[in-house]
Amino acid sequence: MGPGDFATEKDVRRARELGALIARQGWIVLCGGRDTGVMDAVCRGAKSAGGLTIGILSSGTRRHLSASVDIPILTGMGNARNAINVLSSDIVVACGMGAGTASEVALALKAKKRVILLSDDETSRAFFKMLDGKNVFMAETVQKAVDLLRRLLISHDA
Amino acid sequence: MGPGDFATEKDVRRARELGALIARQGWIVLCGGRDTGVMDAVCRGAKSAGGLTIGILSSGTRRHLSASVDIPILTGMGNARNAINVLSSDIVVACGMGAGTASEVALALKAKKRVILLSDDETSRAFFKMLDGKNVFMAETVQKAVDLLRRLLISHDA
Amino acid sequence: MGPGDFATEKDVRRARELGALIARQGWIVLCGGRDTGVMDAVCRGAKSAGGLTIGILSSGTRRHLSASVDIPILTGMGNARNAINVLSSDIVVACGMGAGTASEVALALKAKKRVILLSDDETSRAFFKMLDGKNVFMAETVQKAVDLLRRLLISHDA
Amino acid sequence: MGPGDFATEKDVRRARELGALIARQGWIVLCGGRDTGVMDAVCRGAKSAGGLTIGILSSGTRRHLSASVDIPILTGMGNARNAINVLSSDIVVACGMGAGTASEVALALKAKKRVILLSDDETSRAFFKMLDGKNVFMAETVQKAVDLLRRLLISHDA
Repeated sequence: MGPGDFATEKDVRRARELGALIARQGWIVLCGGRDTGVMDAVCRGAKSAGGLTIGILSSGTRRHLSASVDIPILTGMGNARNAINVLSSDIVVACGMGAGTASEVALALKAKKRVILLSDDETSRAFFKMLDGKNVFMAETVQKAVDLLRRLLISHDA
Repeated sequence: MGPGDFATEKDVRRARELGALIARQGWIVLCGGRDTGVMDAVCRGAKSAGGLTIGILSSGTRRHLSASVDIPILTGMGNARNAINVLSSDIVVACGMGAGTASEVALALKAKKRVILLSDDETSRAFFKMLDGKNVFMAETVQKAVDLLRRLLISHDA
Repeated sequence: MGPGDFATEKDVRRARELGALIARQGWIVLCGGRDTGVMDAVCRGAKSAGGLTIGILSSGTRRHLSASVDIPILTGMGNARNAINVLSSDIVVACGMGAGTASEVALALKAKKRVILLSDDETSRAFFKMLDGKNVFMAETVQKAVDLLRRLLISHDA
Repeated sequence: MGPGDFATEKDVRRARELGALIARQGWIVLCGGRDTGVMDAVCRGAKSAGGLTIGILSSGTRRHLSASVDIPILTGMGNARNAINVLSSDIVVACGMGAGTASEVALALKAKKRVILLSDDETSRAFFKMLDGKNVFMAETVQKAVDLLRRLLISHDA
């Protein structure tokens, strides 16, 4: 999960790398599916590495669908679809931060999902750690986020 | 789309055959994803022919997920998810009839989607033809439904 | 519940009378809240008799809100909000018929709600009676619909 | 908006006072409608001052409905209903903080709604101010929150 139109260059670069590493693990990328920012970048990254991508769109049409989404789910529900994104994910990675991403992290914690914040931002970390000290994890680099995903998924299956 | 717990034997047999034929065309099956009735049968049929299956669950958990769903989308929205099923489908095939299926056919017509009724039931035909004479199609056999899907998808792309 | 832009003159006249009679019983009108067709007419009728009106809008803005809605609920969810309309109603009255209304009647039956069809149309009656012989009721006039509502509400409380 | 089961005593006391002051202004209270925490307290406060209360429930049934809700809207959508809460509010007041409340504040900011944080907590303030410096307001007391609501509503109408 991550910002769309207001994603920073760093967010986009990290999202692309994250998508590629997720695909190489054989995992599926699920995101908001739009043709902008972190959503578009993580799907492009995953496709560059032969992965499978799912986009849960706020819209009821394909107008702003990323060309790198394999499976578009059209909800027509606006940001209420953020609840679907987190329920359908095994683990949420937030790459960058914004109002939409914050709602997804909060909804994920409400649903007792684990969340990795891929971010250098101390304010976000402090806030979400305060909300849920147990299910919020930090990663400073994309590689560390993927290592953490692997460990968390194993502990989940065990 | 089709009934869950109240599917008839005929509905289930047709759903299984439909799933297999859809998969052989290289198309993706999208349904309500539960482990019962038409949802389960169409996914089992698709998997038997090497297809890909998506299940949009009313639940927010995997408890009643069909074992033949490759990609579960967990909405936690009850039957409001029926709107997502139809928006995410290129064409809707209703295999059998019940209150949930009727809501999906009606929501599909409201969204100007094309619907194929795979059914022998005259009452359903008369009702949905009355609602939308243009977007409702009939098929008496699974093979005819698939032939119709192929023609409609071609005319859609053209 | 009833058609918006495609409501007939008879649907609109009946909706207005229904709104007034519901208000006189001290009941609350809940509908889709738009400024057209049955939704607008039932709210206008209710306000003319001093009633209270709730509109559950498909939109996330007030642009197409009926001026006769006291309490607008903005969902931003398109027709997925039809599920909310029926869950929030004690009893559903369908005044006229169309794809959206049909989805509401079907979702109501799926949720085991009682539905009164205020209609002369035999095709709709036959279809919904087939879906649920127990929870579908018929009324040929607005007055009969209100009499039926009163009886059903009493039996519900008992 | 505010926490349910994990509301602090201070959250509940403030919510009750806030409900009463909102009702005295002639405004309507809209909240999540459950029988616990801030939701229940703000409705009780409003009813004690003769106000009107709306509860947008995550559930599809009345099981956990606050007895102080006048108008229950049953969504059956889990926390996806948080999007409806904020779209239907003129201004959001967050009384206390938790994962659900954080999702509502974030969804409100995403929808360009104004939010008042009624809280002493610096971490929440810093986070939401970072997300949106323009639409996030602070209030240390219930009276200050209501004064701010009055000013913001006037500027909104102007």
